[in-house]
Amino acid sequence: MESNPQPVNRLIEQFRKLPGVGRKGAQRMAFYLLSLPQEEGLAFAEAVADACSGVKRCSVCCNLSTDDICPICSSPKRDRKLVCAVETPEDLMAIERGGGFRGTYHILGGALSPIDDVGPDDLNIAQLLRRVSEDGVEEVILATNSNVEGEATALYISKLLKPLGVRATRLASGLPVGSNLQYADSVTLQKAIDGRQEL
Amino acid sequence: MESNPQPVNRLIEQFRKLPGVGRKGAQRMAFYLLSLPQEEGLAFAEAVADACSGVKRCSVCCNLSTDDICPICSSPKRDRKLVCAVETPEDLMAIERGGGFRGTYHILGGALSPIDDVGPDDLNIAQLLRRVSEDGVEEVILATNSNVEGEATALYISKLLKPLGVRATRLASGLPVGSNLQYADSVTLQKAIDGRQEL
Repeated sequence: MESNPQPVNRLIEQFRKLPGVGRKGAQRMAFYLLSLPQEEGLAFAEAVADACSGVKRCSVCCNLSTDDICPICSSPKRDRKLVCAVETPEDLMAIERGGGFRGTYHILGGALSPIDDVGPDDLNIAQLLRRVSEDGVEEVILATNSNVEGEATALYISKLLKPLGVRATRLASGLPVGSNLQYADSVTLQKAIDGRQEL
Repeated sequence: MESNPQPVNRLIEQFRKLPGVGRKGAQRMAFYLLSLPQEEGLAFAEAVADACSGVKRCSVCCNLSTDDICPICSSPKRDRKLVCAVETPEDLMAIERGGGFRGTYHILGGALSPIDDVGPDDLNIAQLLRRVSEDGVEEVILATNSNVEGEATALYISKLLKPLGVRATRLASGLPVGSNLQYADSVTLQKAIDGRQEL
């Protein structure tokens, strides 16, 4: 590393901070950027700076937004009485990709996890409860991940929502579409049996 | 993607350009950067901009450098009559990590590859030849990779060096230290036999 100029080492260190990037990967990324024409490298830097300084949180749903209220929350086509609470903006993207959901969202910012020291105050739960009481929300779909932390978070929030007289629902568990029954794990299969639907 | 603010999508696109980063990885990196405190994100942007604008090529060896001549080329402890020609700055780093080499380097900037449309003029070969004639270089170690492109590049350059009366050498091929003979591939094993050393 001592053979590198200081700015190059600093760049490698910054890349190492990214999720899923190790020492070798960070080096490769840094040297790749430096091999590009200077204006492309600077365009990269600008994109990072723009995103980090220009993007804030929607004051309603806590999603990333350049405006005070994000396009989904301010859209007249969206049903603000139906709120889908997800852990991250990536989860929102996954649901939006389907294109079938016409409600609004709420980004929790993660899931409860005592091991990682994430408690209720670290999530955007207070904002969700305020929204429910103030906006006349009728149903909150607790679309947290289907793992221990996600289930616990959904259960925790549903208990807070009940006294407010709002429906709290959970995404259905079952077989992924196109999947093969014989390869499904037994917990998923049991959930699919429990949640069977009338034809 | 349309659910994201424009700067976020631009950031994801920029991350996708990096080697070894796909759509999912780029998303993860972008959202991770946006989840950091703003000053950390801006520090990342600054590191990229600094490296891209402040780092140039050493006028002697073509390595990355903040100065006109890099620390290795300007060091009085380094033997400028012994030049190790490598493909990339990463290769230089790998040799420097060992700490045993006391000569100087020359970064070729890649290897000859007709398929990728890389010819002799795309590499820093002319600079190497100039250096050899002007600086009284006595030996050039052609430390290109041990693959088809690397071997062809070494052979090509060695033919250009011969008329200049300079020694052209190649790194030894053989068994990696600590490796198991039974798992070595047959070409490596043959090279190790051909290059056997007196004890």
